[in-house]
Amino acid sequence: MNATPATTGLFPADSVGLVTPQTLDFDTPLQLVGGQCLQHWSLVVETYGQLNANASNAVLICHALSGNHHAAGYHAETDRKPGWWDAYIGPGKPIDTNEFFVVSLNNLGGCHGSTGPASINPKTGEPYGPDFPVLTVTDWVDSQAVLADRLGIQRWAAVIGGSLGGMQVLEWSLRYPERLGHALVIASTPKLSAQNIAFNEVARQAIMSDPAFHEGRYYQEGVIPRHGLRLARMVGHITYLSEHSMGQKFGRDLRSDKLNYGFGVEFEVESYLRYQGDTFSEQFDANTYLLMTKALDYFDPAAHFDGDLSQAVAAAQCRFLVISFTTDWRFSPRRSEELVNALTAADKRVSYACIDSPHGHDAFLIPDARYQAVFSAYMQRVAEEVRL
Amino acid sequence: MNATPATTGLFPADSVGLVTPQTLDFDTPLQLVGGQCLQHWSLVVETYGQLNANASNAVLICHALSGNHHAAGYHAETDRKPGWWDAYIGPGKPIDTNEFFVVSLNNLGGCHGSTGPASINPKTGEPYGPDFPVLTVTDWVDSQAVLADRLGIQRWAAVIGGSLGGMQVLEWSLRYPERLGHALVIASTPKLSAQNIAFNEVARQAIMSDPAFHEGRYYQEGVIPRHGLRLARMVGHITYLSEHSMGQKFGRDLRSDKLNYGFGVEFEVESYLRYQGDTFSEQFDANTYLLMTKALDYFDPAAHFDGDLSQAVAAAQCRFLVISFTTDWRFSPRRSEELVNALTAADKRVSYACIDSPHGHDAFLIPDARYQAVFSAYMQRVAEEVRL
Repeated sequence: MNATPATTGLFPADSVGLVTPQTLDFDTPLQLVGGQCLQHWSLVVETYGQLNANASNAVLICHALSGNHHAAGYHAETDRKPGWWDAYIGPGKPIDTNEFFVVSLNNLGGCHGSTGPASINPKTGEPYGPDFPVLTVTDWVDSQAVLADRLGIQRWAAVIGGSLGGMQVLEWSLRYPERLGHALVIASTPKLSAQNIAFNEVARQAIMSDPAFHEGRYYQEGVIPRHGLRLARMVGHITYLSEHSMGQKFGRDLRSDKLNYGFGVEFEVESYLRYQGDTFSEQFDANTYLLMTKALDYFDPAAHFDGDLSQAVAAAQCRFLVISFTTDWRFSPRRSEELVNALTAADKRVSYACIDSPHGHDAFLIPDARYQAVFSAYMQRVAEEVRL
Repeated sequence: MNATPATTGLFPADSVGLVTPQTLDFDTPLQLVGGQCLQHWSLVVETYGQLNANASNAVLICHALSGNHHAAGYHAETDRKPGWWDAYIGPGKPIDTNEFFVVSLNNLGGCHGSTGPASINPKTGEPYGPDFPVLTVTDWVDSQAVLADRLGIQRWAAVIGGSLGGMQVLEWSLRYPERLGHALVIASTPKLSAQNIAFNEVARQAIMSDPAFHEGRYYQEGVIPRHGLRLARMVGHITYLSEHSMGQKFGRDLRSDKLNYGFGVEFEVESYLRYQGDTFSEQFDANTYLLMTKALDYFDPAAHFDGDLSQAVAAAQCRFLVISFTTDWRFSPRRSEELVNALTAADKRVSYACIDSPHGHDAFLIPDARYQAVFSAYMQRVAEEVRL
């Protein structure tokens, strides 16, 4: 499951090259926050770089809502696109695979190979569908801790993630404080706002009111709730981009040279959104989308401390790097600053950078010189610690 | 169709009291921007106050996306709620019915009595449905000019509207510059952004992908695209409120005392959105919703002037009051300021107020002391002009 060295000519020299995902099966019962227990479960995993002799150079990547295990490199020589965070993982990149052993998984409940709603429920012999348990960020982190055990990693040099991934990072720092050296929380928030929940609820209602949803048992019907998933992605996508970047990208440009006074595509932004929605609805599982949005909604570590986040983070022992982006209106810099302030109030060691970027929430995925500089500088210090 | 004086005890003393809408039929062919022509059409209208002898005290109210003619007063003694702008129209209110004769209509294409998609198409004997022409703000203003002729109003003392209504006001000032004294453009914009269009497109796709939509011919099928309209309203509603006001109103409050780890309603904001969507989907026509969003998308008076808004507004002769609200992210203060700057560059007389309000885009509908003060002071000067 390790990346092979990049073959000159086929892939860029700073790519991890060809990677092969591997599925790991677990019989460790996983007690879930919602009350259920998963007896048998699998995770699909990719790794990049080499684990060192004392297993001290491992880094965990936590993915966001529609992410998966394929964070870097290529699955085939014919792949047109590398993994979703390839700009930040590779030889010489911020998460430097010459230094670190990088582990990237598809979360439980996912639709890219880990056990999820489309998997066969051993109790029924049918796909789980709506019977798959609703998962929380805590459950994911617990499953990732079991994964770490399996890989022989007692302590992560760093746990890193953006958006929903950043929530997993924060949860790691609180739930397994002795098992990570650094937490990198990027474009994230310590909890969703009412507006964030509202957008998620629109997405869920779009999926669940699609007649093809069949109360989540669409697999057996041989259909998918394409329209609902398409709408969910369209509304989500709007929240990932800044108003400015949408304006720069599309403005009020028309698809043809004049207005049609009809309901077909007229503006470029309509065409783009429809395309995004169509593509996504062919590739992603609707039940997984529902689960991921619920995990987002539920995350609120301060809830157990009467809303006092600084008390909630008191358990953390690692160092933190928090990064936000100026035009991110999904999880604005103010939300990152809540976390930074709470960490500071709790006497934790935290660095914070608010990156001036036009790209909205998506900025955490996009190459940007200032972001890369901050990210690289921090990870180089982590690498130095590991080498000591 | 005039308001009767408020009956003490039944309605508040500053209410216009009981009002009765009236339907006016027109045989004036209305040539539409999209190329079609409406031969016979009707407008449902309410008026409040008395037209003076020289017809110089008339004020036109232009409604927004989901608005209608019922802007003030009550239709029945049992009505629990007055018209949608009752806080701003009535004796002693900013649009003072002791001073002004106020005209409020349901726009063409509407679903509250004016000719629209649910009306019978004389050519087929069936409801127009998708054959009802796509309308523009210009078409509405043209129909309102014919209405003014019918009412004997050569020149409006003021034309007033919020949001999409504000676009009609701006269009009045450019298309019939000699027919209005004052233009009050509230919580509006000289054109939609790509993000605004994107949200409209999600709403349209939600409606049009509902199987009950039947390509707009759902009237004949005896169904309505309830799910689609509900989603459209839910996503629209999020954009009407500020993140702050949603947070204040709902926060992360739960409906019951604990999380259910399921897909039923858990947070108050979900319950609220579902209720808003359900109510709206019972009351509003889906084809009208589609039309209204297209009129929003198309509005762009600067388009005929290579995007130069100051050239576009050169035709205006009236005075302007432009009002925006600090937390409005649908049409932010910056969008109003574009208009103000263009008007200033074109040497027009313009007053501008940005009101500090927590209520987002909806602020233009909600009672607020500062907003009322600015609005009243301006309208009192208009009333003085009328009296001279």
